[in-house]
Amino acid sequence: MSSAELDVVKKIKAHAQAIYDAIRKGEKPVLRSPVRSLSNVSYNVATGFFELKGSMKQRTLTASTVKSFAQTLLLMNEAKKVVETDDIMTKREAYYVSKNWGDAKFNEQPESDAVMDDIEAMMRVLREELGFIPEEDGGAVAGNLVIIDRDPDTGADVRIDCTKFASGAYSIPSNVEHFRFETKAKFILAVETAGMFQRLVKHKFYQKANCVLVSLKGVPSRATRRFIKRLSQEKELPVYVFTDGDPYGYGSIYRTLKVGSGNAAHVNEYFCVPHAKFLGVTPQDIEEYKLPSHPLKDVDVKKIKDLLKNDPFVQTHKDWQKALQQMAKMKVRAEQQALAKWGLNYVIETYLPEKLARPETWLP
Amino acid sequence: MSSAELDVVKKIKAHAQAIYDAIRKGEKPVLRSPVRSLSNVSYNVATGFFELKGSMKQRTLTASTVKSFAQTLLLMNEAKKVVETDDIMTKREAYYVSKNWGDAKFNEQPESDAVMDDIEAMMRVLREELGFIPEEDGGAVAGNLVIIDRDPDTGADVRIDCTKFASGAYSIPSNVEHFRFETKAKFILAVETAGMFQRLVKHKFYQKANCVLVSLKGVPSRATRRFIKRLSQEKELPVYVFTDGDPYGYGSIYRTLKVGSGNAAHVNEYFCVPHAKFLGVTPQDIEEYKLPSHPLKDVDVKKIKDLLKNDPFVQTHKDWQKALQQMAKMKVRAEQQALAKWGLNYVIETYLPEKLARPETWLP
Repeated sequence: MSSAELDVVKKIKAHAQAIYDAIRKGEKPVLRSPVRSLSNVSYNVATGFFELKGSMKQRTLTASTVKSFAQTLLLMNEAKKVVETDDIMTKREAYYVSKNWGDAKFNEQPESDAVMDDIEAMMRVLREELGFIPEEDGGAVAGNLVIIDRDPDTGADVRIDCTKFASGAYSIPSNVEHFRFETKAKFILAVETAGMFQRLVKHKFYQKANCVLVSLKGVPSRATRRFIKRLSQEKELPVYVFTDGDPYGYGSIYRTLKVGSGNAAHVNEYFCVPHAKFLGVTPQDIEEYKLPSHPLKDVDVKKIKDLLKNDPFVQTHKDWQKALQQMAKMKVRAEQQALAKWGLNYVIETYLPEKLARPETWLP
Repeated sequence: MSSAELDVVKKIKAHAQAIYDAIRKGEKPVLRSPVRSLSNVSYNVATGFFELKGSMKQRTLTASTVKSFAQTLLLMNEAKKVVETDDIMTKREAYYVSKNWGDAKFNEQPESDAVMDDIEAMMRVLREELGFIPEEDGGAVAGNLVIIDRDPDTGADVRIDCTKFASGAYSIPSNVEHFRFETKAKFILAVETAGMFQRLVKHKFYQKANCVLVSLKGVPSRATRRFIKRLSQEKELPVYVFTDGDPYGYGSIYRTLKVGSGNAAHVNEYFCVPHAKFLGVTPQDIEEYKLPSHPLKDVDVKKIKDLLKNDPFVQTHKDWQKALQQMAKMKVRAEQQALAKWGLNYVIETYLPEKLARPETWLP
């Protein structure tokens, strides 16, 4: 086991020991974890992400909580085994493993998912570090970057050179905690659509601009976010985000990447990328580059209103309020491929170089 | 240009020349393409995929067809430029490029998508060969395989060793037409979920079983299907498919991979994998392996009925009819992760080895 893994096992044992001790002393054992909901988060401008406020919930062992109490301890025990044997377990698998727990078995996967989230919050440790991996894997990567993974059998270093995939790319696995990086790239460009990513790879934009390209494939998965977070933090790389010019690209894809989400507030600090900047397509870009556009759909109009009214991130940033109001007024949205109107490679030859040179056109 | 690319350009020119000649002779030029609908396909058991029957539609140049006629020719011209410059164009980009065509511009993307499909069907050439790439990219690959791609700049060979990704994997690009392969693997195992794929990669199942692992990520994209098709055909590798035990895994994921779909019948021969076999999870597996299961949802029951009543593939295979009837009677489905009930790695140590050794338990 690595030292990080030893730490996790130690933490699990400490929690278990405390419960054991309480029982021996004739006290009622208690499990404490923060309340995970939007009402218990605030947007911390200094750290840059949604943070938990202080509300805690606690579960005391009583006749009525005995089942969920047992489930929590049993799942912690599974996590311990998984970490000790250097194995992995998906959320789906955790649910099925419980089928051997007799009366304590989970009846539906949402129950086991919730207990897993509680353990994560209670122990203040990523569930990936507990050996629990997400069902979905991550986005694709290409560019000036060497990833140092380790061989699953021997633990030996495996070097993966992300310039060596020609038209293909590297697919981010579910767990990236053990990755190390070597890079001389100047920034990370996170791209919404696989089609645009393919164009940038095809024309080796990563070489021209000296960067790392990441395909988000829509709202990025935990693995993709954690990958970008770890790489950008360790190598002090700026992160620029390039999505469609629409409320979904702004409020769902970019906002989640940058500050996290409400219901996962207990782990936002591990996933969000507070220093990310929104490169485009901004509402102003739609006008300045005279992009072909589509009328806003009802769902777009509703999303803009929601963001302006309820989103602590938007409420903190005047520039985003202005941009969303501008879009509401223009009544149109534009896809990143709309740039193809000016030529298939206008995005590479003109748009991206111009935008990269003009930080004043970005959004925070 | 490669010789394949020269052929495509020649084909485009020949079509254009025929139209030009007709006009010069004072005749009305005609574009012919097969009718693309389920009513015009049959399941050919010998070739193993949905094939077009003979119905053709033709578009004669008249006052009322002048716009779509012009759009077809203009898009063929864009394809020619893209192939000649060794570039690529997504469906979305094709739509936006048309914004420069004056009155002939497309108003909505479905219009340009349909014209692209018509050109593909008319020319009997894959739209990937015309430089048109799908918006979505492909699944992930790991295992005993070297992919030989080419450098986008120099055209030089780039060798990608799919055993060298440690916990990660190779991400299939949108276009795999130019790939060559080197492998001593005995088969391809196509896996529905990313979580199961991650487990098999983590434990190097590809080494134990000497195979290539492909993550389908649900219903496989064109790129993933074409990748499996080309690899299995050129290297004469069997393809085994491992999905959830439910009507969606059977009727959508597996059926599409194996025989194709109705509305893309004109290109099924390029994408389908007629020699694919369904390894599991079969309804019989759910019983034999005593898997934890879930009640069939209404949509599952409906899907089973649809498959039995309307699907030419199911109607040809008694074994599939029996399996679907068995599931309807059992009234349950099971996920591939249900095997975790018997231990996280039961799937690797017991289930897959047993299933691979017993072809009589597979479905056709």
